[in-house]
Amino acid sequence: MANITKKVSWSSRADESGATGEGTPLLNGSEQPRHSRQLSGGGNIFQIGRLSTVDLEEEMASDEQDSLSRRPKEIPHNEKLLSLKYESLDYDNIENQLFLEEERRMSHMGFRCLEISRWVVCGLIGFLTGLIACFIDIAVEELAGVKYQVVKENIEKFTEVGGLSISLILWVVLNAAITMLGAIIVAFFEPIAAGSGIPQIKCYLNGVKVPRVVRLKTLMVKVAGVICSVVGGLAVGKEGPMIHSGAVVAAGVSQGRSTSLKRDFKIFEYFRRDTEKRDFVSAGAAAGVSAAFGAPVGGVLFSLEEGASFWNQMLTWRIFFASMISTFTLNFFLSIYHNKPGQLSSPGLINFGRFESDTTYNLYEIPLFIAMGAIGGLLGALFNVLNYWLTIFRIRYVHRPCLQVMEAMLVAAVTATVSFTMIYFSDDCQPLGPDHTEEYPLQLFCADGEYNSMATAFFNTPERSVRSLFHNQPGSYNPLTLGLFTLTYFFLACWTYGLAVSAGVFIPSLLIGAAWGRLFGILLASITSSSSIWADPGKYALIGAAAQLGGIVRMTLSLTVIMVEATGNVTYGFPIMLVLMTAKIVGDYFVEGLYDIHIKLQSVPFLHWDAPATSHWLTAREVMGSPVTCLNRIEKVGTIVDILSNTSTNHNGFPVVVQVTDSDEPPKLCGLILRSQLIVLLKHKVFVELARSRLTQRKLQLKDFRDAYPRFPPIQSIHVSQDERECMMDLTEFMNATPYTVPQETSLPRVFKLFRALGLRHLVVVDDENRVVGLVTRKDLARYHLGKHGLEELQLAQT
Amino acid sequence: MANITKKVSWSSRADESGATGEGTPLLNGSEQPRHSRQLSGGGNIFQIGRLSTVDLEEEMASDEQDSLSRRPKEIPHNEKLLSLKYESLDYDNIENQLFLEEERRMSHMGFRCLEISRWVVCGLIGFLTGLIACFIDIAVEELAGVKYQVVKENIEKFTEVGGLSISLILWVVLNAAITMLGAIIVAFFEPIAAGSGIPQIKCYLNGVKVPRVVRLKTLMVKVAGVICSVVGGLAVGKEGPMIHSGAVVAAGVSQGRSTSLKRDFKIFEYFRRDTEKRDFVSAGAAAGVSAAFGAPVGGVLFSLEEGASFWNQMLTWRIFFASMISTFTLNFFLSIYHNKPGQLSSPGLINFGRFESDTTYNLYEIPLFIAMGAIGGLLGALFNVLNYWLTIFRIRYVHRPCLQVMEAMLVAAVTATVSFTMIYFSDDCQPLGPDHTEEYPLQLFCADGEYNSMATAFFNTPERSVRSLFHNQPGSYNPLTLGLFTLTYFFLACWTYGLAVSAGVFIPSLLIGAAWGRLFGILLASITSSSSIWADPGKYALIGAAAQLGGIVRMTLSLTVIMVEATGNVTYGFPIMLVLMTAKIVGDYFVEGLYDIHIKLQSVPFLHWDAPATSHWLTAREVMGSPVTCLNRIEKVGTIVDILSNTSTNHNGFPVVVQVTDSDEPPKLCGLILRSQLIVLLKHKVFVELARSRLTQRKLQLKDFRDAYPRFPPIQSIHVSQDERECMMDLTEFMNATPYTVPQETSLPRVFKLFRALGLRHLVVVDDENRVVGLVTRKDLARYHLGKHGLEELQLAQT
Repeated sequence: MANITKKVSWSSRADESGATGEGTPLLNGSEQPRHSRQLSGGGNIFQIGRLSTVDLEEEMASDEQDSLSRRPKEIPHNEKLLSLKYESLDYDNIENQLFLEEERRMSHMGFRCLEISRWVVCGLIGFLTGLIACFIDIAVEELAGVKYQVVKENIEKFTEVGGLSISLILWVVLNAAITMLGAIIVAFFEPIAAGSGIPQIKCYLNGVKVPRVVRLKTLMVKVAGVICSVVGGLAVGKEGPMIHSGAVVAAGVSQGRSTSLKRDFKIFEYFRRDTEKRDFVSAGAAAGVSAAFGAPVGGVLFSLEEGASFWNQMLTWRIFFASMISTFTLNFFLSIYHNKPGQLSSPGLINFGRFESDTTYNLYEIPLFIAMGAIGGLLGALFNVLNYWLTIFRIRYVHRPCLQVMEAMLVAAVTATVSFTMIYFSDDCQPLGPDHTEEYPLQLFCADGEYNSMATAFFNTPERSVRSLFHNQPGSYNPLTLGLFTLTYFFLACWTYGLAVSAGVFIPSLLIGAAWGRLFGILLASITSSSSIWADPGKYALIGAAAQLGGIVRMTLSLTVIMVEATGNVTYGFPIMLVLMTAKIVGDYFVEGLYDIHIKLQSVPFLHWDAPATSHWLTAREVMGSPVTCLNRIEKVGTIVDILSNTSTNHNGFPVVVQVTDSDEPPKLCGLILRSQLIVLLKHKVFVELARSRLTQRKLQLKDFRDAYPRFPPIQSIHVSQDERECMMDLTEFMNATPYTVPQETSLPRVFKLFRALGLRHLVVVDDENRVVGLVTRKDLARYHLGKHGLEELQLAQT
Repeated sequence: MANITKKVSWSSRADESGATGEGTPLLNGSEQPRHSRQLSGGGNIFQIGRLSTVDLEEEMASDEQDSLSRRPKEIPHNEKLLSLKYESLDYDNIENQLFLEEERRMSHMGFRCLEISRWVVCGLIGFLTGLIACFIDIAVEELAGVKYQVVKENIEKFTEVGGLSISLILWVVLNAAITMLGAIIVAFFEPIAAGSGIPQIKCYLNGVKVPRVVRLKTLMVKVAGVICSVVGGLAVGKEGPMIHSGAVVAAGVSQGRSTSLKRDFKIFEYFRRDTEKRDFVSAGAAAGVSAAFGAPVGGVLFSLEEGASFWNQMLTWRIFFASMISTFTLNFFLSIYHNKPGQLSSPGLINFGRFESDTTYNLYEIPLFIAMGAIGGLLGALFNVLNYWLTIFRIRYVHRPCLQVMEAMLVAAVTATVSFTMIYFSDDCQPLGPDHTEEYPLQLFCADGEYNSMATAFFNTPERSVRSLFHNQPGSYNPLTLGLFTLTYFFLACWTYGLAVSAGVFIPSLLIGAAWGRLFGILLASITSSSSIWADPGKYALIGAAAQLGGIVRMTLSLTVIMVEATGNVTYGFPIMLVLMTAKIVGDYFVEGLYDIHIKLQSVPFLHWDAPATSHWLTAREVMGSPVTCLNRIEKVGTIVDILSNTSTNHNGFPVVVQVTDSDEPPKLCGLILRSQLIVLLKHKVFVELARSRLTQRKLQLKDFRDAYPRFPPIQSIHVSQDERECMMDLTEFMNATPYTVPQETSLPRVFKLFRALGLRHLVVVDDENRVVGLVTRKDLARYHLGKHGLEELQLAQT
């Protein structure tokens, strides 16, 4: 089963460093008698799982809970697992002597230059992200235009002579073929590019190293994939992937080189570490949001809400700069594309159209909005639960790439068929006004000068459908059309999310919400029969869209701002906030947000904002891993190689200890060194004996570590001869001499706060003599979570 | 001199705990040989000042720098001082046994209830802040209406018959009288209520305990004061004080009691500690911004930008809720006041009016905007420098309350006189349209059906003037009027800020900027003589307003969002951002922002976002205070009383150490205890001997500490008999058993990051045997700052 999980996981490459766990300090951990400890605290049932790599089925049988047994047997509950596959990023600077020397050498001017280059990088990130958004937009526009034109002409031809089934087949084949293309590149070349990428970026910003997530290849597959899936007529949006694209651009630009293309521009070398890179990736994600929705402030808030634990004014301002540049670039190039150069009217990929300021809301509508928020929360929870089951099914049965491609094609075919059927059987004809906004009005069996209203919703890119639901004149849709559309699109969108195609869930959610929102507005008008008050169903479409999106993704502040910016109108800020809040509260009662579900299903050790509230009775002593593999300050090369080669433990961080000479006291903590550093040291053969013999040898510099970042070679690739094994290595200069430490009695929330606020990777636990007694890593903290029955502990597994 | 500083400082009450310094651990610090150490690092001149309480004049003579000597001699450079008067807030939970026991007892449900009450409190904060804003708005509107009506009628009467000097006298007397009222309550009753309150709130959120800043009395004086100063016709706004008011409301509501009114509602007791209170004060400040500008998102960003170092999603969402409720409340009640109930059209105190969406900008205007940003930066820097000199002058010579009242009256009189003169000599007559927006059009010597254009700017509340500059038809003002207005108002506003009246600087800044911005627009049109392109001077007024405000206060992201929300139009987001960025860069080249200048002049130990970039060569060893006064875990009462009574040191935090029995090793760190906790223990006589004798004695609970919070009695008020002095106190249960520690070699940036990210008050420095060697407090970190010549060290002084 663990094997199955691996197949479809975000990082399914076998050549990846996938098998290395995050610094598990448990040298003999799995042998420890920690099986099914039962502790009861504060009246809560508390499950301490086993720390083991044994088969999951066995686990299941032993601690199956009554709440779990109610669910179908065949679904494996692997959201109760925490994968040891994911490594952590290290947002804490490694302050070793080399680093301090460099910093001390740098003048005031040097720091100013660095600051300027940070701004330049952010500008570049914004510019490139905007360009990519522009490319996606134009490609989708052109290709979808060709497709819809072909199908429309075909339908019109066959409407007269009969035999519309041929049109159906044409549509289905076109959709399936385009989707297949998109699915093939994703499933076979870069599986991490599937989906919207938002969960992956959330994880990255949270500090989890999701393999291959910010590579150039991922970006290219993502961009090509999203064009294919939107043009392929799936119920998807092109907005979510922009966030991932922006992040990849940022990770690339900020490093001043491309490892994939083997080009090193020798610039921005200072930024080649996790701390700096994370900041740029935040900016990239913000620029992506900004380009997607024309919402620069929303982008900044998105990055902050999802990522940054430490708020820094200058950083935020830089992120905002990147966002602004991004939306400006997009706007500028699109204005040229639309032949209106200089008229900056399309700040984002999706344009909600302007809500006029005179369409305001009244006090008595607020309860209605809250009710709509509750509906959105319920529908969102339903969406998430269905998608959860579907994802479990996919994990179990649809894990081979060719199966994934076939599933994507099936969905594309079904989407086209259902759309066609709905349009075919709909008799909702609307007059085609002189200034109609419909791009591809289908006449079908309507009278001349009229068009099929169902086709506006189905026979269109989802962005246009949303806009027409928001802005079309009252009466453009009849209630039956909207109801049927909501129903079918809901299930189509739910089925689509999680396919091996690159696609976002924002637009489908908005579309579902806009449809039932508009329906709500129309029904309201017909019930109260005072059409003057409820004149504008578009307003309800907007509120419904917000409610549905909020119910699915559960974003809060950033989503409010994104919606406000996308509508270009601050009037609806208050109702949108109310609706999102209600949707979140109602939805959270049932199930988590969609992104969190997918993060959980990948068993990612994700750290939330705070430790679980009821975890005060846990201390570092219980949480930490121990015993810890420590290194001496001057250590034998052979020992280091052996420790690094030990695949059963795969530690990534090692406390360095020092023994006071001529004393039998236990050794004391004096530093912390990472696997990656040791690898570089071994590669450059920084041995005490060699340094003595070859006095002219170049001293190892920070540059050597930066050149190796971030793809450090595995230990197996480094050859150490038998003679060299007997040499000694002096770690003093390279270790972080002042790692953060906590005493054993520190409560879990306190440890958590320190770890989260500083973005740590390893936290050393010491006793009152400053001896190392344990090591806290991400998985130690992430494994405690608040379940329905109080605090639960997730199982750790080498998936 | 130090005495003078104290007189006009934010907390000038002698009865205040003003004399207690923040936990200086230097028992004999002032005797230490630290005088004028000269170290040179990285080519920078580095000044290590003396840690002393000696007279400043002596100091000055010894380390006067060439850069300083260029300035006039009589101005004391006391921005190079750091006051020991200010205590720190403690955002780190005191995790002692009592606290942990309480947390462990609390069920999951209990935490949920807490969370709900947090929301309720935030809702209340928003509601009350909105109400206060509403009250201020209506009071100003009504009173200013009466005043302007009286003066207008008088002027009209005397325009015909001659003898306008009587009108002038009437106006001057009215203004001076009203201003006097406002100045008296501020100067005599609550000096902390002077100014906008934003610097004080910045300090509070930064973690500095500014005495009396969040008291009920302060709020009342603030509200009454701001009404008087706006009605008194000063060049001030009523927006800044709203932020302070919101913060006071928050601090009051969240504690569930009023110490001033001696009422305890026995609710929200859990929130009676710095950590929780800070969060609510952030919400209050945000609600204040939101009510002032109708900018809920801007409010959230303001709070985050100025305060929170640790971003928490739920907290932000709550802050946003408070902001939304606040603007909604204001909007609702104002709509009733304006007799249009339910029409929510005034979300803030200032209403910029709606910028129509068709007035967009063109690409070629962007360089112009950047140029305007530079002008704004220059003018802002000039404003700040002038105000800085003025403030120094005030500190030296205008420190007696009656002098302060007289200065305020003088400014009011001069303002009225200047305004009158300007209006009198202006011959800019404009036709009075049928739908004129001028509230009090002055005809003066204009023809019938016309009004004096200068009067629109001067004879009006500043908010209305801003609006008319933004929106009046092209041609409403002639360039000379605008030029003269800019010039006079610039100096008036500069003179006014810092008076002993409660008033904000936002609106005057916007007004100055709007005036020269509009002038810029008009000149542009006349130079290029193509009036069609530069048709709208209102747009330039907006950009100018942003540039000027940005140049003065140097806020970034939050100001952009505030401006966008206040204009109700996202179109100008990009130019406003560019302008603010340029203004900040240009302005920062010359001098800091206005608020930072005032914070510095008060010698507040303010922590910036990061440690100075070039401070890597300083370590905890150099920064920390030592030796440290430690307590034993079981300590004699007499010793504790003596330590607490020692006024020469006034420590606030004490590391607790334990001696390993039957060993001669030095004692090891086992906890940290605060002065306030010791005071409570002494007050309740928690002595080991008493506990033994009276077995039934009630155990001390967290409630006892909470009841005493935040006004702990001074040690002098606690009577300890001679017998009791011989008793012992067991601190085990009460001390924080797991204080954060750092080794001595930790670099300053690393110490800073830990301190700032976790909001610490005391950070214990230990050696590798876990023995206490020093203590880092706020002043130790705040005293290093980046000056023109590299890293500088501020002097510490008992002001």
